[in-house]
Amino acid sequence: MRKWILGIFILAGFVANAQNNSDKMMEQKIDELLKQMTLDEKIAMCHAQSKFSSPGVPRLGIPELWMSDGPHGVRGEINWDDWGYANWTNDSITAFPALTCLAATFNPELSYEYGVAIGEEARYRKKDVLLGPGVNIYRTPLNGRNFEYMGEDPFLASIMVVPYIKGVQENGVAACVKHYALNNQEEWRGHINVNVSDRALHEIYLPAFKAAVQEGGVWSIMGAYNQFRGQHCCHNEILLNKILKEDWAFDGAVITDWGGTHDTKEAALNGLDIEMGTWTNGLTASAKFAYDEYFLANPFKKMIESGEIEESVLDDKVRRILRLMMRTNMNTNRSFGKMNNQEHSDVARKVAAEGIVLLKNENNFFPIDADTKMTIAVIGENATRSMTVGGGSSELKAKYEISPLEGIKKQFKNATIIHSMGYASGPSAYGREIPSGLDADSLVSAAVDAASKADIVLYIGGLNKNHFQDCEGGDRKHFKLPFGQDELINKIIAVNKNVGMVLISGNAVEMPWINNINGLIQSWYNGSEAGNALADILSGKVNPSGKLPYSYPVKLTDNAAHHFGELSYPGDSVNQYYTEDIFVGYRWHDTQKIKPLFAFGYGLSYTNFEIVDVKLDNTLYTDKDVIKVQCTVKNTGKLDGAEVVQVYVGKPKSKVDRAVKELKGFAKVHLKAGESKIVMIDIPIEKLQFYDESQSEWSLEKGSYLVYIGNSSDHIIQKMKLKIQ
Amino acid sequence: MRKWILGIFILAGFVANAQNNSDKMMEQKIDELLKQMTLDEKIAMCHAQSKFSSPGVPRLGIPELWMSDGPHGVRGEINWDDWGYANWTNDSITAFPALTCLAATFNPELSYEYGVAIGEEARYRKKDVLLGPGVNIYRTPLNGRNFEYMGEDPFLASIMVVPYIKGVQENGVAACVKHYALNNQEEWRGHINVNVSDRALHEIYLPAFKAAVQEGGVWSIMGAYNQFRGQHCCHNEILLNKILKEDWAFDGAVITDWGGTHDTKEAALNGLDIEMGTWTNGLTASAKFAYDEYFLANPFKKMIESGEIEESVLDDKVRRILRLMMRTNMNTNRSFGKMNNQEHSDVARKVAAEGIVLLKNENNFFPIDADTKMTIAVIGENATRSMTVGGGSSELKAKYEISPLEGIKKQFKNATIIHSMGYASGPSAYGREIPSGLDADSLVSAAVDAASKADIVLYIGGLNKNHFQDCEGGDRKHFKLPFGQDELINKIIAVNKNVGMVLISGNAVEMPWINNINGLIQSWYNGSEAGNALADILSGKVNPSGKLPYSYPVKLTDNAAHHFGELSYPGDSVNQYYTEDIFVGYRWHDTQKIKPLFAFGYGLSYTNFEIVDVKLDNTLYTDKDVIKVQCTVKNTGKLDGAEVVQVYVGKPKSKVDRAVKELKGFAKVHLKAGESKIVMIDIPIEKLQFYDESQSEWSLEKGSYLVYIGNSSDHIIQKMKLKIQ
Repeated sequence: MRKWILGIFILAGFVANAQNNSDKMMEQKIDELLKQMTLDEKIAMCHAQSKFSSPGVPRLGIPELWMSDGPHGVRGEINWDDWGYANWTNDSITAFPALTCLAATFNPELSYEYGVAIGEEARYRKKDVLLGPGVNIYRTPLNGRNFEYMGEDPFLASIMVVPYIKGVQENGVAACVKHYALNNQEEWRGHINVNVSDRALHEIYLPAFKAAVQEGGVWSIMGAYNQFRGQHCCHNEILLNKILKEDWAFDGAVITDWGGTHDTKEAALNGLDIEMGTWTNGLTASAKFAYDEYFLANPFKKMIESGEIEESVLDDKVRRILRLMMRTNMNTNRSFGKMNNQEHSDVARKVAAEGIVLLKNENNFFPIDADTKMTIAVIGENATRSMTVGGGSSELKAKYEISPLEGIKKQFKNATIIHSMGYASGPSAYGREIPSGLDADSLVSAAVDAASKADIVLYIGGLNKNHFQDCEGGDRKHFKLPFGQDELINKIIAVNKNVGMVLISGNAVEMPWINNINGLIQSWYNGSEAGNALADILSGKVNPSGKLPYSYPVKLTDNAAHHFGELSYPGDSVNQYYTEDIFVGYRWHDTQKIKPLFAFGYGLSYTNFEIVDVKLDNTLYTDKDVIKVQCTVKNTGKLDGAEVVQVYVGKPKSKVDRAVKELKGFAKVHLKAGESKIVMIDIPIEKLQFYDESQSEWSLEKGSYLVYIGNSSDHIIQKMKLKIQ
Repeated sequence: MRKWILGIFILAGFVANAQNNSDKMMEQKIDELLKQMTLDEKIAMCHAQSKFSSPGVPRLGIPELWMSDGPHGVRGEINWDDWGYANWTNDSITAFPALTCLAATFNPELSYEYGVAIGEEARYRKKDVLLGPGVNIYRTPLNGRNFEYMGEDPFLASIMVVPYIKGVQENGVAACVKHYALNNQEEWRGHINVNVSDRALHEIYLPAFKAAVQEGGVWSIMGAYNQFRGQHCCHNEILLNKILKEDWAFDGAVITDWGGTHDTKEAALNGLDIEMGTWTNGLTASAKFAYDEYFLANPFKKMIESGEIEESVLDDKVRRILRLMMRTNMNTNRSFGKMNNQEHSDVARKVAAEGIVLLKNENNFFPIDADTKMTIAVIGENATRSMTVGGGSSELKAKYEISPLEGIKKQFKNATIIHSMGYASGPSAYGREIPSGLDADSLVSAAVDAASKADIVLYIGGLNKNHFQDCEGGDRKHFKLPFGQDELINKIIAVNKNVGMVLISGNAVEMPWINNINGLIQSWYNGSEAGNALADILSGKVNPSGKLPYSYPVKLTDNAAHHFGELSYPGDSVNQYYTEDIFVGYRWHDTQKIKPLFAFGYGLSYTNFEIVDVKLDNTLYTDKDVIKVQCTVKNTGKLDGAEVVQVYVGKPKSKVDRAVKELKGFAKVHLKAGESKIVMIDIPIEKLQFYDESQSEWSLEKGSYLVYIGNSSDHIIQKMKLKIQ
């Protein structure tokens, strides 16, 4: 026995040693390469040579770095010098569900599978860097880009981002976590200066990035467009030099968002490594000139030559870029990748089905028995609309995309399916609320007519990927459903009492009709397998287990960012102030006792669960301890299913303002009908620290804490006290 | 001693075993992959997906195959679906000298260095297959594409092609030897049916391909456009199935020339593996359709599904393609490649300088002393014309190209250089003999004026890369120098007696003024370092050592192909007849006693050599023996230099028609001034076989042979008899 243990220790030592040796060899190799490089060659590596590549050193056999937009799939090939598609035919990929959906699964294992799969596709497409995942915090439901992120909670996003990164990077493809930091709205994103307290910064907006770096070991990170404390985030002394590279010891490369660089000296000195997309005017003829005039190109070189900037500043950047290369395109052990295989479709479908959230289910409206003969009216543009098209840089060229209607038709073979659009939003990226070429009134009448003839109505609407919807480059203009859907829904309800809704979106919406419908499913931009996964849920083939990764306020001003008015969101065009501070999402609802329409962490199942026998391993802890939360989850219903046990912690009496509770642990438990399982959730005491602004460091407050165990932030089964001494 | 030998044997055995094991593992891996592939996936691999790529199997992680035109450098990136350049900025490369120049070096070591260097560039550019080298035999000086080949002699081409291939393939990049076979003219290349005897086929036109396969181990081969015995060469039963794959045991992939496929069943059954470029209409919108309708796409699939063709036929193709991939893009040990490094420039310059041939040097006109103050008139368009542009598929986007004028200016710093174009040929690819926009008369007067004021004239003319010059897709219209150069030269000679000529071309030309000039240098399309290499020769920094790889007839009808009239060249548009049979090049001149203007193997030096003490190791040989030819080469002059000892063998009395002599061995010897070296040249007796048409196999005739040793085909120093019994 002792021998065996010794063996393990030796092996572990050997592995650690091997890693150290390999790191040391890597650094030696980097030094050797760096020594051989000319000033011009080093400068060249710090900026783009095309829309999505930066140069290597051909003379020395250092490869180019090729990047692709993510984070839901590998983007189609883009022209060398402009944003047009290159019209290749080998770049149709598997579209994976949006990251909101992934977050809603509350299942880190799925995040890993997602990462492996998308990493394999990136590798097959010869990409070295995948621009994703996105972990900006969901602060307002109007942010056009929330669908690319992982919700409102820093703990959830931290847990979910790590396995994604590990999965991607196993393929020798770098993840590039983005957008660092505070890019929480699209309105004025290019210049808005975010004013936020240190505490909110560290407790709410940075944890997912920190986890990506320290636990995920991410190899690259993308700076945000906006400003923080008067400096653009792509060359921000505090964010990049102080926090990321010094405090977190990030050893990878910082890449701009495309066009996010604004100043040579700041870019040089404040931690940027690779400048991309600065000139996006698409002037092919003058492109060579343009790339050479990037902030980190000739202007940077001149400052080095004049002595204004030390060459060591450049060397550090090149070292980081070379390190990124050693881990990706200079790693001869990486695999070839795969694309569009069954396994990837399976991952996409599984994530989509596990992420869909059942929000309302009166009289067990869902699931709908697929064996029954009946007429189902499928109404709404989102039943057929492609959601891989549009949305900005995350737009995909999907190999295939199963629409909700297709998915339903495949699984409800005994039903008569009639489809009616109900409204038309116009082509993606040119979205407007008044449909063009289609008469809105006649679409409504046709839909109402269909609804009146059906046994049940499945309304499939929500937002889409049009500009001013869930789309990069702009925010939603209001909190309502667009394209006249509220009126349409009311008219449908008037003619048919059997209405179930499927909202497809990446944001919460106002729901004035909520009491008049029987069922409500929140679905997401679910990629290639969207329709299959939705039909899995509708038919009961898969029992829903998704939980909301963000709160649904009843009205917009119930959301903290909007509570504080325009200076909070969207700002005065120069500045904005995160006046709500740490009280984002459920922290706000809980603390202000503003009941949300649907709470963070909420989600129903077709079966019933009980969480019982909840206990802590102790009542008194010290700062190095780990709280062990234990409970038993019982599936008391008749169907297999999964429940997410959520553990929140609060500190009722504190020297700083505290949220009532904050998520500190969760576990997804899959249970057969009638099955019980004991669940253990560990919470290291150090995770209960707050960020002490007076000391500029994390600090643990002693005293009493409350632990809340439940299955959503507003459904707590048990509260327990503990003390830290 | 015995132990040591044993060790060597064991080591050799081990290496051979390792190779066998690795081959076996490769074949197993191929079988495993093949088993997993669907019919559609297998079919897809047999044809293009874009202008220069064929698909892999994304689902299984089998990469795509990316090809690039060669053979003198890696071509610029081409659009997905049409022949336009993609306007990337990372594809400027080192342009290496044309293969005629490489052949003229008579230096296999340089061929290896060339192969390594171009292979490294292809690898850096992420190309898996480099479409080259070309080894079609120089049959007529009118062939527009001779500059891409290695001259008129099958032995010389065989010796030179092997190290090029090995060098390229060391990088994990496949060479693709082309154009197999009998594509010896561009006129009607797409359909002309070549009628040639078996003997000429095997003795003249195939040996370089055979060496490429059996000694070079080439991984792919490109079919020719033309027909042979009524079948297109890209799907020719005799050439591909019988000779290449059966007799020579070629295990790689046969790739079409672009658009060289014409029939599904023939393509399927007669040995083609990958069909490229069939639709070259550039219709992006319908490209997908077009690729699916390739002969080896849907039509092939239908024949398999109907049972007309066995699926095993397809499997053999896919196996070959997978084998090509295992050796290239699935070889994880291959390096990253390099591009535009100093070593590549050095190779380019060295090959160019060693390939330039000094043809005439009255009163030691060359070298020109670079220290002397004098006025040099550099006259002729080729002094400044880019030769990497134009010429067809071998056109290059050179990172830089030193023109002859630039090279001269750099090395002749004490001279006053005046330059005058003398003529203008118009832009490349739109060449015409009447210059447009430039007044021919005034160009001539300016040139004559310049010549009259100069101490010496360097006339730098010849052919260029325009259509109907040295350019793919058309043949020269006549044997003369184009663009009025003969008249121009005569006018120059009339005003200045000190005229040295530099002809830049890939073909012989008529030289009516040859007796009236003092010096003549044959230069080639020499790529990036063209001007530097030429100046090296002109200044004497490098002593010329190139030898002509083809004969220069006095007049066109002195060439065998043209002696036999139009049915021989260019044919009647349907058929052509290689009536001269094996009597190509010097074989014709020798045998018919037609004195060439300059003979195959001819080339002067700035120093003098003597070849003495010539002897054979024996006088009587059997069929397994090797003739060992020995001689001493002395450099009797005052400069270091290199001489090429050439060994020809003939059989005066034979049952078949024989050329007087055929090259069977050569050695390039570098000698300091005054130095002597003993040279040994091995000639295996089996290399003296002729192709016996009555038996359809190689046959050794017994009896007396004559061995000729000299330094050109028309300058034999010694003849010796031997007997084979």
